[in-house]
Amino acid sequence: MDNYARDMNAEAADALAAVKDADRKHVFHSWSAQELIDPLAVAGAEGSYFWDYQGNRFLDFSSALVFTNIGYQHPKVTAAIQEQAARLCTVAPGFAVDVRSEAARLIAERTPGDLDKIFFTNAGAEAVENAVRMARLHTGRPKVLSAYRSYHGATSTAINLTGDARRFGNDSATAGVVHFWGPFTYRSPFYAATEAEECERALRHLEDTIVFEGPQSIAAIILETVGGAPGVLVHPDGYLAGVRELCDRFGIVFILDEIMVGFGRTGKWFASEHWGVTPDLICFAKGVTSGYVPLGGVAISAAIAETFARRPYPGGLTYSGHVLACGAAVATINVMEEEGIVEQSARTGAELLGPGLRALAEKHPSVGEVRGLGTFWALELVRDPRTREPLVPYNAAGADNAPMAEFGAACKKGGLWPLTAGNRIHVAPPCNIAPQDVAKGLAILDEALSVADAHMA
Amino acid sequence: MDNYARDMNAEAADALAAVKDADRKHVFHSWSAQELIDPLAVAGAEGSYFWDYQGNRFLDFSSALVFTNIGYQHPKVTAAIQEQAARLCTVAPGFAVDVRSEAARLIAERTPGDLDKIFFTNAGAEAVENAVRMARLHTGRPKVLSAYRSYHGATSTAINLTGDARRFGNDSATAGVVHFWGPFTYRSPFYAATEAEECERALRHLEDTIVFEGPQSIAAIILETVGGAPGVLVHPDGYLAGVRELCDRFGIVFILDEIMVGFGRTGKWFASEHWGVTPDLICFAKGVTSGYVPLGGVAISAAIAETFARRPYPGGLTYSGHVLACGAAVATINVMEEEGIVEQSARTGAELLGPGLRALAEKHPSVGEVRGLGTFWALELVRDPRTREPLVPYNAAGADNAPMAEFGAACKKGGLWPLTAGNRIHVAPPCNIAPQDVAKGLAILDEALSVADAHMA
Repeated sequence: MDNYARDMNAEAADALAAVKDADRKHVFHSWSAQELIDPLAVAGAEGSYFWDYQGNRFLDFSSALVFTNIGYQHPKVTAAIQEQAARLCTVAPGFAVDVRSEAARLIAERTPGDLDKIFFTNAGAEAVENAVRMARLHTGRPKVLSAYRSYHGATSTAINLTGDARRFGNDSATAGVVHFWGPFTYRSPFYAATEAEECERALRHLEDTIVFEGPQSIAAIILETVGGAPGVLVHPDGYLAGVRELCDRFGIVFILDEIMVGFGRTGKWFASEHWGVTPDLICFAKGVTSGYVPLGGVAISAAIAETFARRPYPGGLTYSGHVLACGAAVATINVMEEEGIVEQSARTGAELLGPGLRALAEKHPSVGEVRGLGTFWALELVRDPRTREPLVPYNAAGADNAPMAEFGAACKKGGLWPLTAGNRIHVAPPCNIAPQDVAKGLAILDEALSVADAHMA
Repeated sequence: MDNYARDMNAEAADALAAVKDADRKHVFHSWSAQELIDPLAVAGAEGSYFWDYQGNRFLDFSSALVFTNIGYQHPKVTAAIQEQAARLCTVAPGFAVDVRSEAARLIAERTPGDLDKIFFTNAGAEAVENAVRMARLHTGRPKVLSAYRSYHGATSTAINLTGDARRFGNDSATAGVVHFWGPFTYRSPFYAATEAEECERALRHLEDTIVFEGPQSIAAIILETVGGAPGVLVHPDGYLAGVRELCDRFGIVFILDEIMVGFGRTGKWFASEHWGVTPDLICFAKGVTSGYVPLGGVAISAAIAETFARRPYPGGLTYSGHVLACGAAVATINVMEEEGIVEQSARTGAELLGPGLRALAEKHPSVGEVRGLGTFWALELVRDPRTREPLVPYNAAGADNAPMAEFGAACKKGGLWPLTAGNRIHVAPPCNIAPQDVAKGLAILDEALSVADAHMA
């Protein structure tokens, strides 16, 4: 590819060789067959871009893994991390610490309802683990319902709650997890013709599942507020309110997983605000620090917190409320507030990304659907827009996945780093991406989609 | 207490009030009944000390939670974090990055045998989760054997592997976990009279357990190289080699949990070096960055890595090999190397802590046993040295725990922050604690042990 063909000086070439050599010898990568991957060596990053050792710059439409909500290396946040590192990196979790208190306060101010207690974890999977533990102990019930087409993390409970192919190979510890089907109008599991019908039928399906599993056995329902990894699944209006009502009726804890969609991604601090729904527990991570320092957590309702007011909560972790991470969270939230990044995300979605992606869909027959909000969108790529047959089969690998691999390669060749998943591209640039970079990214996508078009039936 | 009685200026008093107020309103703490705790507000920390807002300084004999192996705020490591923050905080886990490669190389250089591939996690629990997943997939077997008197973390698999009271209340997802009894000469489960007899009987017990569970069903045995949270349980010579032999004989993966004891804590880079035993997987965390930035991981043998050479590993995490954390790990390891901190830990144990604690045991009848190595020791406090009845019962709370609570308070009053657990005090200062601080800590312990003596039968 031309993009990879530039010259390096000798020093950069040596540095690259060292990075690649040690990576291949010593780094074991996530979700990968270790000998079948060839990781790109990244030399640096700033704002919406990162670059390699050859000087190739990529516009990052993936926000790393949908977490650099303020872009890479925001100077105010890196300065705050530097200042915090000089002042205090860490203490034990049992103490009160200024930035830990302040991070909790800033998050609690932004969560809906009375979710005012924050239990900090290292990242999202542990947030889900702890939310489920709280729900089970609060209700005294064993089961948790989660959706097919979901991702909740890769620790034992989290991966078994997950409703995508990453669950395969993790079949222990499934006890107490029941999967149901959520609404998905474009590929309706309920043969619905409209959003309203999909919503109604999905709620009936969930209610039937609750009744047949036995409400008295169900501790919690966990849902991504907007389905992230499964393809930016924006629930129909009324669905989350309907789930809330079912939870209330049956005494079930409602957990919203906002790990990917919280902190501005959908144009709100938390995506649940779009529908005015208040869950009992919110899991968060990623955007809370823009990934600069690992941090996640659970926001807890007053009623659930009360369960552990005088009874010890049987969970914890060495780095709960890690000081450097909390310092990064305080800086990230303040920067998002000061610079209006949440509002910018909403505006970018409404004025630039939404219209721009819909225009691409009109032009490229391989685009079956465009959906999203804020700076979080997906294009469904299909072999045939009438049958909606996906461009590649579910969980495709190797030759089966060639059309998507070629499409991804075309994006990279054009200078755009895409987040492809199954037959989709997810469009998730930093929430503060500049308008000219949106335009640039859309132009690269325009070219790359011709590759997808060429693979249609 | 006198130590808490000093004056603050008005500014410090306001800062303290704000920290405490937000902590009590918004921070949900690990392992605690939220209304029954009153977290000390920590204002700062350096080396082996931290201090509160009143200016009370505490000599930290707990290393936070046994992780600040190089002490708090080592200037070379905080400088490296600052430099890394300015350069690059984060990228997606799929890339090759200089400090990620270098951290993996530095760790792999220090692990025994051919454990040369490093899978990075956020911390220890996820290291255990992933080691177990690797073992199950490598062997195709479901069960994992772990010891009573152990702690392996608080995610679903990790907490169920745990063999202490923190497992209580976490009784889901136990499928596939079998607990056995490890050697513990002072409280022998096997009625052994000597270390050698304890070792032999513990190995026979483990072999019998393997045979009766069915070797063909057992993926892994996981052991803390030196039992950490359960009380600095130093295995008798020959035990780990015996477990290695059983694993080899039955095709079982041997996982050593070095989360608490790796990176200098016992006077070696990894505690397994004391016995020349090479496991198949090593879990690490804590000391790898001295806790300055959250990081953990699994060191993987060539044979297990080969299992995932051409078959995707079904696990991963957003922050695997987090850039800022890997930068902290590189700096921490280099500082430990340059300053000879591992050797210092060994020397401090052999020359100061060991002799000093044994002298206290001679003087105080409540000290039933002293055990440990490097900068990792425990004193068993007993009501009666002949019966060895613990000073407080197992998992004691409230009034039952009063003797240990009073002992802990006496340490704090003297200016020492102790790590008490059950009927024990664990002595785990930074690996680079200064000799005069060892002496000072021992003097404070000397006074506080009189409180324990007063509670004897």
